[in-house]
Amino acid sequence: MSTERHRTRRRGRSHQGEEGGQALAGQQPWKQPRNRFPPVNVLSEAQLLHIHEASMAILEQVGLEVLNDDARRRMLAAGAEAIPDSLRLRFDRHLIMECLQTVPESFTLHARNPAHNLMIGQDYTSFGCVASAPNASSLDGGRRTGRQSDYRDFLRLAQSFNIIHFLGGYPVEPVDLHPSIRHLDCLADCVTLTDKVFHAYSLGRQRNLDALEIARIGRGISAARLEQEPSLFTIINSNSPLKLDEPMLQGIIEMSARNQVVCLTPFTLAGAMAPVTLAGALAQQNAEALCGIAFTQMVRPGAPAIYGGFTSNVDMRSGAPAFGTPEYLLAAQASGQLARHYRIPFRSSNVSASNAVDAQAAYESTLALWGAMGGGCHLLMHGAGWMEGGLCASFEKLVIDADLLQMLSVYLEGMVVDEQTLALDAVREVGPGGHYFGTAHTMARYKDAFYTPLVSDWRNFESWNEAGRPDACQRANRLYKQVLQDYQPPALDDAIAEALADFVARRKAEGGVATDY
Amino acid sequence: MSTERHRTRRRGRSHQGEEGGQALAGQQPWKQPRNRFPPVNVLSEAQLLHIHEASMAILEQVGLEVLNDDARRRMLAAGAEAIPDSLRLRFDRHLIMECLQTVPESFTLHARNPAHNLMIGQDYTSFGCVASAPNASSLDGGRRTGRQSDYRDFLRLAQSFNIIHFLGGYPVEPVDLHPSIRHLDCLADCVTLTDKVFHAYSLGRQRNLDALEIARIGRGISAARLEQEPSLFTIINSNSPLKLDEPMLQGIIEMSARNQVVCLTPFTLAGAMAPVTLAGALAQQNAEALCGIAFTQMVRPGAPAIYGGFTSNVDMRSGAPAFGTPEYLLAAQASGQLARHYRIPFRSSNVSASNAVDAQAAYESTLALWGAMGGGCHLLMHGAGWMEGGLCASFEKLVIDADLLQMLSVYLEGMVVDEQTLALDAVREVGPGGHYFGTAHTMARYKDAFYTPLVSDWRNFESWNEAGRPDACQRANRLYKQVLQDYQPPALDDAIAEALADFVARRKAEGGVATDY
Repeated sequence: MSTERHRTRRRGRSHQGEEGGQALAGQQPWKQPRNRFPPVNVLSEAQLLHIHEASMAILEQVGLEVLNDDARRRMLAAGAEAIPDSLRLRFDRHLIMECLQTVPESFTLHARNPAHNLMIGQDYTSFGCVASAPNASSLDGGRRTGRQSDYRDFLRLAQSFNIIHFLGGYPVEPVDLHPSIRHLDCLADCVTLTDKVFHAYSLGRQRNLDALEIARIGRGISAARLEQEPSLFTIINSNSPLKLDEPMLQGIIEMSARNQVVCLTPFTLAGAMAPVTLAGALAQQNAEALCGIAFTQMVRPGAPAIYGGFTSNVDMRSGAPAFGTPEYLLAAQASGQLARHYRIPFRSSNVSASNAVDAQAAYESTLALWGAMGGGCHLLMHGAGWMEGGLCASFEKLVIDADLLQMLSVYLEGMVVDEQTLALDAVREVGPGGHYFGTAHTMARYKDAFYTPLVSDWRNFESWNEAGRPDACQRANRLYKQVLQDYQPPALDDAIAEALADFVARRKAEGGVATDY
Repeated sequence: MSTERHRTRRRGRSHQGEEGGQALAGQQPWKQPRNRFPPVNVLSEAQLLHIHEASMAILEQVGLEVLNDDARRRMLAAGAEAIPDSLRLRFDRHLIMECLQTVPESFTLHARNPAHNLMIGQDYTSFGCVASAPNASSLDGGRRTGRQSDYRDFLRLAQSFNIIHFLGGYPVEPVDLHPSIRHLDCLADCVTLTDKVFHAYSLGRQRNLDALEIARIGRGISAARLEQEPSLFTIINSNSPLKLDEPMLQGIIEMSARNQVVCLTPFTLAGAMAPVTLAGALAQQNAEALCGIAFTQMVRPGAPAIYGGFTSNVDMRSGAPAFGTPEYLLAAQASGQLARHYRIPFRSSNVSASNAVDAQAAYESTLALWGAMGGGCHLLMHGAGWMEGGLCASFEKLVIDADLLQMLSVYLEGMVVDEQTLALDAVREVGPGGHYFGTAHTMARYKDAFYTPLVSDWRNFESWNEAGRPDACQRANRLYKQVLQDYQPPALDDAIAEALADFVARRKAEGGVATDY
């Protein structure tokens, strides 16, 4: 009995009311923002249909290479056409479009803390932490290869900032953990250091299965219930152009079979892995995305899926990828338009190619967010901390992006227009030439009338100068350290913590996942 | 005869084809971008009408203080209602709405170089240089009080960057020129150092008249033709709340009477000079703007006018103005919606409160531009170089903003979707697993397929690190100096140059404009 009480005692903070980092000035409460403004249609209806037609022609005439026997068998059984002496399949447009009919327009993605569940679809949007960077950087620590200590600090920040709604993968790759067991340690950390939605890399069948089990244990539910309640998602990148490789196909099979979330994101950089024209790159993206999403429905009709748009371009002089450019902005909004056309939830990203947390990092990110929000994005990957075109996760940029995302959240709220806010009485009271500082209307509202920033510094030049002229990056440096210091792990049932530890220990004892190095 | 030839010879570059700074890598040719994407309606129709009603109630019940006898007489004659023992007038909504009927929906604003004429209205947008900052700053020169040398350098940059379409005032206030003659030297510089549209401050009747004469001389036209062709504009800030002061009213009278352009921009900072709620601040902005614009039509029906939206808020803890915030973004788009409702061209701004050319400066500016473009802005004030909430003009920020404005220009172009850009042949040629670098489709297009930035650095970390890790501000510093070095004055007829010099010399000999200091 006392053991039972001990085993069900929650560790850390309670789930209710005490969000991480609440003490942080300017921190907003947890909320999933709703994007009520109409999306920006950068394509005319004719242009949209033209791109659709081209992608159907690609699927019907060129097809995709499908590098997994099981997947090929399933596709052929569903009606795909084999091309002799090749691993390539062609897909009739009717087959693809029929499969898309069963993709849910919206669904709930469950977190182990139900307060952090996400609605994916409708007018809800959600913001993720930076993911998959091989390097981490901070102003004083410099740029270094990813390691577990940085990985865990990013998780703590992702948990602490309420505006970061989910983990889209490992914020930074902890290369000090052996690949055979890295996913076990990393995913266990997701469960213990955060209570938000997380992501499983599709890097081989066994890793998917381990991730599914960790998600199940983390929520303390049965396998049957996990299958009713999507609780894990995976990003599937087609190997552009027009290839679906083995681990990605295994990922779709394992995840979709269990009704978990597959986000299909072609990596179509125009001029390199896709045509040098935006329209061509989008047609190819669309063909690849729809093919992969159709496959999720061949595996399990009704399985949740997301349309990922990541089309950008390379600098044709150097081959370097460009992000947060006008082409990126157009492609993001056009991708959102395509996803809406098929009634599939849309994924976009907050991206920048900058090497420094400087003006370039900020304008590229803000342009990318303009693209995402105008595109009606439901799942924003790399929302906070991504730089160098994905090669580095920055602690300071995470904080600056968190400020930006909070601002978007307030923007998306729109404004209240009613008798009280129109304030005619206050206007009459003040009259020409007065000011509103002391009016009853102001006094009743001034405390939370406007957005309070995390990073932005609105002091006048003289005060700022006396304070040592800290720029946004330096202020963010101080903030991320403060948040880490204030961090407390979220509540976790002892029983779940023990089951998780047991599972990880057992799987490690089994050797984790075989690797050839 | 030889004298005559000498007098009509053009100095500097020819008008045709050789834009200033064309040698700059990434410089785009002169073009006025068109904003073909539908504007963002952040207000529902009901909310829009509610704000309209509130502003009509303000005009009818509270009214405005009108601090100029001539203006008051004209308004009373038009049907305004006097309030005894005060300078306040009330305005019936029918009077205001009837006046607005004659505001042109679009018009041409003439530059002395006809290639730089601006279409104000329709789906055309235009970008102006920073204006009216008391201080200038550069990375190596530091922050200093405005002076003529900086003023002239800003003009040279504004001329050199094709994406800067007009001067919205003095980029920086040259306080080393005595106020009695400052406008003469400054406006003469606008004509000689640039050939773009420029602005006249409404700071007393005589300054408006001098500016009109300089605009006329600069274009080499008659007063009658000037009256047919709007060639000068002025920003009229109402003295919020609800006051129109003497020099501003004189400005409207002199400018509108001659069919020149008046942009009416209330300075409604919510929580200070306007209610602490966005809806209330917008209602007051709307009342002030419509009253001033209606007055332009009382002076001369059909005179060109622009609706300026500048509503933002103050930080209620410190009183510091905030710019480029979510509230600013909402107010900008709502202001554009109001202007569209009345079919009046819309002015917005590129603003930031940052003291450094850092991430904050860039995200605030980009959010402001999102507001402006989503609001359907026709005239963008402070497009390049504004910082510190308007207290400083930065040489580096001008270059960074020019890059941003160029990106917007490319974004607004949208994309071409046709058989060629859809590139099906290239997709067939490359097939699964290949790449597009060497295809005929790529080779035919790679040189100008994508945006080439001015400032953005897309090198990988290693190359960037070896190059000394220059951030965006440092790169902009190098660029502005290069552009200044390459600057050549635009062509100017000797006859015009002499007439201008004669006029300025005569007016200076007359003492310029009387000041009390």
